[in-house]
Amino acid sequence: MKILILNGPNLNLLGKREPEIYGKQSFEDYLIDIKAAFPSVEIRYEQSNSEGKLIDFIHEVGFAYDGIVLNAGAYTHTSVAIGDAIAGVNTPVVEVHISNVHAREEFRHKSFLAKNCIGVMAGFGLYGYQMAIDFLIKRK
Amino acid sequence: MKILILNGPNLNLLGKREPEIYGKQSFEDYLIDIKAAFPSVEIRYEQSNSEGKLIDFIHEVGFAYDGIVLNAGAYTHTSVAIGDAIAGVNTPVVEVHISNVHAREEFRHKSFLAKNCIGVMAGFGLYGYQMAIDFLIKRK
Amino acid sequence: MKILILNGPNLNLLGKREPEIYGKQSFEDYLIDIKAAFPSVEIRYEQSNSEGKLIDFIHEVGFAYDGIVLNAGAYTHTSVAIGDAIAGVNTPVVEVHISNVHAREEFRHKSFLAKNCIGVMAGFGLYGYQMAIDFLIKRK
Amino acid sequence: MKILILNGPNLNLLGKREPEIYGKQSFEDYLIDIKAAFPSVEIRYEQSNSEGKLIDFIHEVGFAYDGIVLNAGAYTHTSVAIGDAIAGVNTPVVEVHISNVHAREEFRHKSFLAKNCIGVMAGFGLYGYQMAIDFLIKRK
Amino acid sequence: MKILILNGPNLNLLGKREPEIYGKQSFEDYLIDIKAAFPSVEIRYEQSNSEGKLIDFIHEVGFAYDGIVLNAGAYTHTSVAIGDAIAGVNTPVVEVHISNVHAREEFRHKSFLAKNCIGVMAGFGLYGYQMAIDFLIKRK
Amino acid sequence: MKILILNGPNLNLLGKREPEIYGKQSFEDYLIDIKAAFPSVEIRYEQSNSEGKLIDFIHEVGFAYDGIVLNAGAYTHTSVAIGDAIAGVNTPVVEVHISNVHAREEFRHKSFLAKNCIGVMAGFGLYGYQMAIDFLIKRK
Amino acid sequence: MKILILNGPNLNLLGKREPEIYGKQSFEDYLIDIKAAFPSVEIRYEQSNSEGKLIDFIHEVGFAYDGIVLNAGAYTHTSVAIGDAIAGVNTPVVEVHISNVHAREEFRHKSFLAKNCIGVMAGFGLYGYQMAIDFLIKRK
Amino acid sequence: MKILILNGPNLNLLGKREPEIYGKQSFEDYLIDIKAAFPSVEIRYEQSNSEGKLIDFIHEVGFAYDGIVLNAGAYTHTSVAIGDAIAGVNTPVVEVHISNVHAREEFRHKSFLAKNCIGVMAGFGLYGYQMAIDFLIKRK
Amino acid sequence: MKILILNGPNLNLLGKREPEIYGKQSFEDYLIDIKAAFPSVEIRYEQSNSEGKLIDFIHEVGFAYDGIVLNAGAYTHTSVAIGDAIAGVNTPVVEVHISNVHAREEFRHKSFLAKNCIGVMAGFGLYGYQMAIDFLIKRK
Amino acid sequence: MKILILNGPNLNLLGKREPEIYGKQSFEDYLIDIKAAFPSVEIRYEQSNSEGKLIDFIHEVGFAYDGIVLNAGAYTHTSVAIGDAIAGVNTPVVEVHISNVHAREEFRHKSFLAKNCIGVMAGFGLYGYQMAIDFLIKRK
Amino acid sequence: MKILILNGPNLNLLGKREPEIYGKQSFEDYLIDIKAAFPSVEIRYEQSNSEGKLIDFIHEVGFAYDGIVLNAGAYTHTSVAIGDAIAGVNTPVVEVHISNVHAREEFRHKSFLAKNCIGVMAGFGLYGYQMAIDFLIKRK
Amino acid sequence: MKILILNGPNLNLLGKREPEIYGKQSFEDYLIDIKAAFPSVEIRYEQSNSEGKLIDFIHEVGFAYDGIVLNAGAYTHTSVAIGDAIAGVNTPVVEVHISNVHAREEFRHKSFLAKNCIGVMAGFGLYGYQMAIDFLIKRK
Repeated sequence: MKILILNGPNLNLLGKREPEIYGKQSFEDYLIDIKAAFPSVEIRYEQSNSEGKLIDFIHEVGFAYDGIVLNAGAYTHTSVAIGDAIAGVNTPVVEVHISNVHAREEFRHKSFLAKNCIGVMAGFGLYGYQMAIDFLIKRK
Repeated sequence: MKILILNGPNLNLLGKREPEIYGKQSFEDYLIDIKAAFPSVEIRYEQSNSEGKLIDFIHEVGFAYDGIVLNAGAYTHTSVAIGDAIAGVNTPVVEVHISNVHAREEFRHKSFLAKNCIGVMAGFGLYGYQMAIDFLIKRK
Repeated sequence: MKILILNGPNLNLLGKREPEIYGKQSFEDYLIDIKAAFPSVEIRYEQSNSEGKLIDFIHEVGFAYDGIVLNAGAYTHTSVAIGDAIAGVNTPVVEVHISNVHAREEFRHKSFLAKNCIGVMAGFGLYGYQMAIDFLIKRK
Repeated sequence: MKILILNGPNLNLLGKREPEIYGKQSFEDYLIDIKAAFPSVEIRYEQSNSEGKLIDFIHEVGFAYDGIVLNAGAYTHTSVAIGDAIAGVNTPVVEVHISNVHAREEFRHKSFLAKNCIGVMAGFGLYGYQMAIDFLIKRK
Repeated sequence: MKILILNGPNLNLLGKREPEIYGKQSFEDYLIDIKAAFPSVEIRYEQSNSEGKLIDFIHEVGFAYDGIVLNAGAYTHTSVAIGDAIAGVNTPVVEVHISNVHAREEFRHKSFLAKNCIGVMAGFGLYGYQMAIDFLIKRK
Repeated sequence: MKILILNGPNLNLLGKREPEIYGKQSFEDYLIDIKAAFPSVEIRYEQSNSEGKLIDFIHEVGFAYDGIVLNAGAYTHTSVAIGDAIAGVNTPVVEVHISNVHAREEFRHKSFLAKNCIGVMAGFGLYGYQMAIDFLIKRK
Repeated sequence: MKILILNGPNLNLLGKREPEIYGKQSFEDYLIDIKAAFPSVEIRYEQSNSEGKLIDFIHEVGFAYDGIVLNAGAYTHTSVAIGDAIAGVNTPVVEVHISNVHAREEFRHKSFLAKNCIGVMAGFGLYGYQMAIDFLIKRK
Repeated sequence: MKILILNGPNLNLLGKREPEIYGKQSFEDYLIDIKAAFPSVEIRYEQSNSEGKLIDFIHEVGFAYDGIVLNAGAYTHTSVAIGDAIAGVNTPVVEVHISNVHAREEFRHKSFLAKNCIGVMAGFGLYGYQMAIDFLIKRK
Repeated sequence: MKILILNGPNLNLLGKREPEIYGKQSFEDYLIDIKAAFPSVEIRYEQSNSEGKLIDFIHEVGFAYDGIVLNAGAYTHTSVAIGDAIAGVNTPVVEVHISNVHAREEFRHKSFLAKNCIGVMAGFGLYGYQMAIDFLIKRK
Repeated sequence: MKILILNGPNLNLLGKREPEIYGKQSFEDYLIDIKAAFPSVEIRYEQSNSEGKLIDFIHEVGFAYDGIVLNAGAYTHTSVAIGDAIAGVNTPVVEVHISNVHAREEFRHKSFLAKNCIGVMAGFGLYGYQMAIDFLIKRK
Repeated sequence: MKILILNGPNLNLLGKREPEIYGKQSFEDYLIDIKAAFPSVEIRYEQSNSEGKLIDFIHEVGFAYDGIVLNAGAYTHTSVAIGDAIAGVNTPVVEVHISNVHAREEFRHKSFLAKNCIGVMAGFGLYGYQMAIDFLIKRK
Repeated sequence: MKILILNGPNLNLLGKREPEIYGKQSFEDYLIDIKAAFPSVEIRYEQSNSEGKLIDFIHEVGFAYDGIVLNAGAYTHTSVAIGDAIAGVNTPVVEVHISNVHAREEFRHKSFLAKNCIGVMAGFGLYGYQMAIDFLIKRK
């Protein structure tokens, strides 16, 4: 089983940026925990600040992998193109947000991706990535 | 550890109502699976079609339990009062929706509860309840 | 043939409340006329001021009766949950309003129920209930 | 007693146009049934695709007839002028829609005519015309 | 000097329709006064309930007359096409409303014609037509 | 003189819930002070989390009491039905809010009840209930 | 007969400010023409850039004069208070705009005064003041 | 103890203007009653139709008085500047409206001042001023 | 192969009206070029300023012709009824605009027809009509 | 003559993605047909999922080529920057959409590019690219 | 070279009012620094809480001075009249805000003045006034 | 002291694109002037048409430099992601626009970046970059 974790803009700052919202751990550190939790799954990790690059990644794995765990960051709220990319591939996508976006600014309540994903979650911290992988395994 | 699963309006029809969206299993049947999955957790289950009754349940357990897994159904999109009830108690609440509400009508994209919950999820089917309990145990 | 007439909030005040809009006759008095007009139909009448209770009634008869004539009063304009209840049952529902709601305040022009009903009518006074029953018989 | 049935744009296509929404019967065929159902009423039938022509018909009978059963089709949702015409005459007007317009596109939920009519109905199929005439007789 | 007075939908009911708003005099009666007040001006009068017909009249005189006094009635608030017709001709147009449309429903505050007219007035009763002609003479 | 104090959802948590907004005193404690301040008035107190139950209370006293002091909590901002109940009875209603709702979220600025009440106040803390009773006595 | 011409903010710049919109003549120069045109009317002229001062003038003459010709300039589009002042006095007010405000920015299409005036006009240049006075004499 | 009663635009017309809404008593007459009711409080009264003047008064007393009872009239609904003035001073302000503004036009439901006041009331007639002073004494 | 070119309001002014937007050639002149370009196609041309007449033409050919090239002019932006007429017939319709409507006023960006047409184009001048016919032939 | 065909996000999936909307042919296959149809035109083809890259291409050819046929995919509905790029170059741009975007979701009806293009078309399938090139040649 | 610094409502409270937003220095103190920084410029300073007075100042200097540095405070967000005054004079105006208004309430993001000013700045504290003067000298 | 000047999409066209708005000088030419004006500051210059690339630059210098002068061009109005990048770094950012964006299209009035910047300016031409650097030095 192969899963892509795909992080969008500013998530490379994790551990550095606004730690009161996103925590102090970098994603790379946390990735070790995730891989340990799912030893039988092949987990690939990519991050980009570029909308186009995120679409490229979705296209690249979208007919071959078993799942994408996508945290598109701020592009969640503005990108019709990423939403179309999700609709255009066969691999199921789970939308994950570390913080509870509904408790933040109004413009973060709207997702252009959600309707094309199989499921959406927000507010479960970094653990949300594991919950998403757990679900993708479960539904297999 | 004590957790309340609280279902709102029309969820008593589960298995009967619009099975193409919500599946064919009744919630009571599924509850057996949930309890089996978390043998060490004391799980109580309540359902009501009444907004006021749901508030009463939140008040009743909200200073004593370790978590509430709340699927407030259609009241999610209209009830300021349930949102206030969540804000008024100490027990953390996870908002769960069986279907991906973001892929349905526009008015189902708005939640009056989400900002007062610690986390929100939608689209993971009945398995979402287990994911929520798993998270509540994890964060303890 | 079995039909439920279901009245929502404040309709128990009929004959007492704002008689220039709703007339001076109580609904119970008028029910005698309705039953007389359709001797071969079994007509049950329920009223409640509670949204949850109205949902309970819809669930109770919604897989067994031949029709529901529903005047949900003010909940018409705010209740996603009653709308979902109608969608969740098999019995056809006709939405009835005594006054012409379109000639009143803007917020009364919107119905959250109408799209799930088979038909909607407003402005025909108490006679509207008979028209609704007549239609339910006709379409059988 | 004299009643005008007045149909608006595209209703001349009835039986031909989108039969899954409007049925397969032409209005002229159905008119025979209506006349048979109300032998003592003088029923005149007019149809036009022109907004101005519909206003002309309303003016023509609006001080002489006992009722108008009006299905203004798409003009319902855009015509302030027909709404004014109804307000300007003495004859009571019942607004009828064959399909349940509330279950269709958003822009079909708004009527510029309704507030000036005595009653409004939608979703009762062609039988709605008979219900409207029945009401006009009843209220005499 | 040649001027067209052009009245739109329902203005043929003047004197008959809602006299508390529009007065009891028919426009034809009043036309005698207008002609008497401007003996040296050739005044033509047309009325139609049809949007297309009003456009035809504007086209017909719009390159030959010295002015159009236009009361487009309810089409004022909905007709982009009449607005385009005014923009498409050379003759200056004065928009006139008998009643003070700003003291009536919200939707009567918007005019699709006004920006293409040289001047607009409302609330001066039938005398407004004379004021408009007076202005057209003055500006010559 | 007979007055009903009627509290809506979550006000049973007073003293427990968000004390930085609502203070630390329970309403029952405060009721002793109110009764002491108006010894000649018969004061009844009811609280419910249910919209329908609040309507029932308004109906019950609404043709017999001299005043209702109503704090409908979050239902203030969503309930057309309670607004209709107030309009449907004879007893005058004063709308009271403990906190200054205008200094809180946008959705708390809108009241569906206010237009049917004789007066509205917000921000005067628990003392507001006494001010409301004082006014009801004064206006007698 | 006594009439007040009352000009609002920036109209003191007339002849100086944006002459392509408002013309090159100062209002004081034009006032001579107006007075000459109505020798039997006592015409007073006031201008102020202050909203409060304009209200003072309306109060001062509003129970004694036969008419006010008001060009409130930009306050037209923002001042509820001047609208209230007009409603609070007995003297009829005619709202005048020199330019056709409907052909300018969207925010100039809305008037907070119009509904309380007897009539409104725009686009007739300085001659509009004479048309307004003519109407006030006529309706006497 | 020193309190300023500050009235805004058109309130000088009290007793004269729209008496069916505001009553027939002038404010100066009523002031005698207020002073009599609170003999130990030094009460100053000011009124102005000018927004800037009202701000000047708030600044003048805002660091020295014990309270301001402010009825800003129509400026309530449009003045960000008065709202800022209230926020900029130390003296607590109570917003008072004589009529129930929520039962009037939509634009009167919005207050730019309320969020900076400690409390707001509407609909209690002139007696509201006494209720406000009573509260300011009470909270001392 | 039979094709109807159908032009809406004001297009009869082509060559006369606003030539800087629409060019100086009348449509009749241009029609000669079109016919020359498609010698094997039977091309009929109709124009009307009346919405109802345009609907009549669509009905007339809509079950017999191979295509309609429709420039509905200003009715494009307001007519639900023409949109319904297109949906009601079998003949494919191509929506054509001479100018680039998206570079003009906001209200010209919205089309009520487009969703029922097979294709839409704007900005290609009179040549757009040829492009539309070329497409209709191509898709045969 | 030199023309750039520039495709935006997800158009590299053509033939793979949602074939019921976009057809089964890849764009590269179709390009052979286009080139064959216009043997005398030098046609370059570029595709990118990146907004910035699309802008780079527009800048690169925008002062040298004779035309750009641009299908910006989802960026059409969100990119002010691509709109600015089109405005910033001299080469004329034709906006093309394969599907009829007006028959899809509301947010696809809005284009940020259209007003800066010379023409826009949608719904003509892959043949639209040929129509666009044909027009660019024609207008030369 | 002559420049007017013009401050609007509540800026006289500077140093006193909300010092966490606006700092502790009064504007008069700071003016000494400004004058010292530009010894060759004649700098006049005016402040008023009155919208009309601010317009008067703009008129007074607007055909004679070399620049106006305007901080209109809260009137920035509500005053069409000040915007018109700026448009009506020849002197260039720079709009300055001490705090970053875009980081405050939504209604402070809108300026009715900005489009008529040559430049706008916010968030540079009191130093912004010097930056504005520096620019006015530079552009000379 | 180290400062990054960061220009967004289409600013590489400066001197070439719409010179009537942006002037005829390329930014590289102007950079020589800036560096000359601040000899003691280390000034780096970057430009990109890619949103993701701009975020990368902000991250790269955002914990090391003393200031960023950012002109994000059209991304200002659409990019939540760049706004988040600014919030995520420590280096203060000044938002600069060459033209007065408030005097252009409505959609250019909204900035998603401004609230996270320390200051914002628009309309001061290329000189604005120097004003921004001057401020960053000043506040050190």
